[in-house]
Amino acid sequence: MTEFDLIDLFTRPAPRGGEGVVLGIGDDAAVLRPPRGQDLVATVDAVVEGVHFDARFRAADIGWKALAVNLSDLAAMGARPLWALCALGTPRGERPARLAGVGRGLAACARAHEVAIVGGNVSRARELSLTVTLVGAVPRGRALTRAGARPGDLLFVSGRLGEAALGLADGAPPRARARQRRPRPRLELGLALRGVASACLDVSDGLLQDLGHLCDASGVGARLETARLPLPDARAAARAGRDPLALACGGGEDYELLFSARPDRAAAVASAAARTRTAVTHIGAVVRGGGVRLLDERGRAHTVRVRGHDHLR
Amino acid sequence: MTEFDLIDLFTRPAPRGGEGVVLGIGDDAAVLRPPRGQDLVATVDAVVEGVHFDARFRAADIGWKALAVNLSDLAAMGARPLWALCALGTPRGERPARLAGVGRGLAACARAHEVAIVGGNVSRARELSLTVTLVGAVPRGRALTRAGARPGDLLFVSGRLGEAALGLADGAPPRARARQRRPRPRLELGLALRGVASACLDVSDGLLQDLGHLCDASGVGARLETARLPLPDARAAARAGRDPLALACGGGEDYELLFSARPDRAAAVASAAARTRTAVTHIGAVVRGGGVRLLDERGRAHTVRVRGHDHLR
Repeated sequence: MTEFDLIDLFTRPAPRGGEGVVLGIGDDAAVLRPPRGQDLVATVDAVVEGVHFDARFRAADIGWKALAVNLSDLAAMGARPLWALCALGTPRGERPARLAGVGRGLAACARAHEVAIVGGNVSRARELSLTVTLVGAVPRGRALTRAGARPGDLLFVSGRLGEAALGLADGAPPRARARQRRPRPRLELGLALRGVASACLDVSDGLLQDLGHLCDASGVGARLETARLPLPDARAAARAGRDPLALACGGGEDYELLFSARPDRAAAVASAAARTRTAVTHIGAVVRGGGVRLLDERGRAHTVRVRGHDHLR
Repeated sequence: MTEFDLIDLFTRPAPRGGEGVVLGIGDDAAVLRPPRGQDLVATVDAVVEGVHFDARFRAADIGWKALAVNLSDLAAMGARPLWALCALGTPRGERPARLAGVGRGLAACARAHEVAIVGGNVSRARELSLTVTLVGAVPRGRALTRAGARPGDLLFVSGRLGEAALGLADGAPPRARARQRRPRPRLELGLALRGVASACLDVSDGLLQDLGHLCDASGVGARLETARLPLPDARAAARAGRDPLALACGGGEDYELLFSARPDRAAAVASAAARTRTAVTHIGAVVRGGGVRLLDERGRAHTVRVRGHDHLR
């Protein structure tokens, strides 16, 4: 099987055309027409066998996850996705059916989010990997960034934290396993937060670590109220021998949106959550200084032993 | 060393700002402002240890080559480069000095071609690899493609073929080794060929195989005159035990431009070559039908045993 056969096998199921695609896969490069008056938003992320997925993943889950983690980055910028370029690394002797399965999962995620696959590359490698570059659009100057949080802002997070990490445990409930294998990027919420959130990022490394990134970029600190955190199911966590709070604070791969908003925008946050049918929880506040403090129900400092998710594990 | 330290180590030397870069590395995604009235051109390519480079490559050569092969794709479209996103795969225990060296080579190539590195990602992997997605611009509707060749068009190629493949041989001359390790994308020639070439691609898989791609995309055939081909140095090829014609026809990784032009554009081709100080050779013609025929000096069909360069080798 040649490189061309493999690229075809792997990209055939995907939507290859769409908004702004003048010339798609098949030439030296794609030709793309950017939407007028918009900025582009671009990100790259890879999923690698043994790091981001293992033998428990179905092939289609791998393709889905590779695109979904990039979509989550665009959600965090308030951008809508347009075009993806995908580079597959595959060992000699990998089963064509598995590569086709990866392509089907990629295609399913692309269709679900109206993304055109406009570039493909296949290289020999020692383990299976899929590197996706995703380009989207946002009205000029309106991208959400990590840098706009100010002391006094409220902190919010979407969905439920720690479930994806729980999904790696043996005997994890199906819902947690699905969160691990088929993350659902919060694109609609991200769009609804433009002009509402003061800063935003997606939780991929774990709440505390990512909140630290938001604080660093904004030059502020944060106070989290542990009693407010949307924890994973306590019984499922207990069965897996994991602490729900530690999972929520450091589990990683949640792909939820963590954002700040001025207190007078609280109603706009609630409205964005309702319009996009997304659970959004008020979890704390932005403060002066630096660092992240956890407070228990009585306002006492709380220590939680977490290890930020390390994509280099 | 965390992922963030590694991304910083690896992207620090690179130019991170430039035309249209509103927000570069450091947020969930880059924010980019496309130039007005232009189409974007986008491509992705990877270099992998043991496939595209080996222990004889210096670290900086790896970084240079990863970007250069993408620049060559943009050259073939007549586009000028703007922004690159780079995903590094690195084994546990890779020396930081080697990763920094890859970053320096990437930065050198980016500076030489005015490319901003706007995205970075680092993942654990079993071998070193660098996947680059490159975005450039071309005036709307003016991208060169593989599909415009018509019977009667003349065929041209830039530079000298087969040298990069020769550069892999033991005892190869320094010039051939440099061609293999530090390809020089023909960006200026590509720009000068807009409105001049009828079809264009870059020679990465070997002349015959890539000419086959051009013919397939254009629905035509081709006739090559072996006596016209710009062969690698005969003595160096002999020392390496290689046939110069076979190297030129199938060596691969030349990263030269192969293009067609109407006969009445021959003077414009010569002018583009002169303006960009690029050797351009007339090597044959486009004909009706399909397939590529090689003719010797007396017009007799010539058979050459080549094996197209296989990036999956």
